[in-house]
Amino acid sequence: MATDNHKPDNTPAVVSFAGYSGSGKTTLVEKVIKILTDRGYKVGAVKHDGHRFDIDKPGKDSWRMTQAGAAVTVITDSDKLAMIRKHEQTPSPEEVISNYFAEMDIVIIEGWKESAPNRIEVHRKGTGKGALCLEDGNSDFIAVACDCNLETTLPRLDIDDPHAVVDFIITSYL
Amino acid sequence: MATDNHKPDNTPAVVSFAGYSGSGKTTLVEKVIKILTDRGYKVGAVKHDGHRFDIDKPGKDSWRMTQAGAAVTVITDSDKLAMIRKHEQTPSPEEVISNYFAEMDIVIIEGWKESAPNRIEVHRKGTGKGALCLEDGNSDFIAVACDCNLETTLPRLDIDDPHAVVDFIITSYL
Repeated sequence: MATDNHKPDNTPAVVSFAGYSGSGKTTLVEKVIKILTDRGYKVGAVKHDGHRFDIDKPGKDSWRMTQAGAAVTVITDSDKLAMIRKHEQTPSPEEVISNYFAEMDIVIIEGWKESAPNRIEVHRKGTGKGALCLEDGNSDFIAVACDCNLETTLPRLDIDDPHAVVDFIITSYL
Repeated sequence: MATDNHKPDNTPAVVSFAGYSGSGKTTLVEKVIKILTDRGYKVGAVKHDGHRFDIDKPGKDSWRMTQAGAAVTVITDSDKLAMIRKHEQTPSPEEVISNYFAEMDIVIIEGWKESAPNRIEVHRKGTGKGALCLEDGNSDFIAVACDCNLETTLPRLDIDDPHAVVDFIITSYL
């Protein structure tokens, strides 16, 4: 059950998920968001895309406005608002959080390669890749969600038990 | 050429376009945005959709995050940021402008049926509809862009001359 005392300064808690392609990051993130939402928390989500993404549909009015030169385009209907903003440089996670997530309880970040706050690694031995948290320069990880007995002093979470991952997040940050 | 003296209080100018379906609103708005951008203004755009719009693509990571329950989802890449925010109630044009367009020179609004600031009607006699600005309760229009000799005391702009429409906007608000 969500309480208010986890937001003393009115900024949301932030947890980031990182891991190699094929580790099941998005599947885990999806489950974590659903469980947190079901438990009454207001959840924000950030996806950082290494490639360029297309979101609006060619030919739609909002797409035409952006194509015509609008630096920021907003589309609203009765149940949501969408915004597309062009930028010269990707903002930092901190800027994104303070600009768009002020009233959330927690923000879940996925795909920000470096310098994302409170990183949990998602690791599966089947990917054939080593664990990021064991590499030099990655001492900032706070936990690893995995399907094996990784030799690490970090808290180890079961990648196939999203409720345990959520419990860890709540205990640590909410 | 854009100057700074049109933003004394750091809020953008706002102009709204309204008109019946088939009047060519979006085509005119598109041209107006392009001309303003070419003249050096930083332009924001708002589309209010009477129906529900779909913007994200089913199956994409960001779509999955929103489906899982995220109240706000942000996706970034190297040249843009997109945000999808669920709401109980459509925010007012004023809220949208103060939340998302603070650093713009001008915001062009399309499709907000009532209470949009500084409305210009887009009217073509070929639609077979009367002019909105001649209806009771619509005395707030500031001009009409049309292809006929509408009997009105409002400034009449040529719907097929977007440069003249932009000149009117700049003279009035920028």
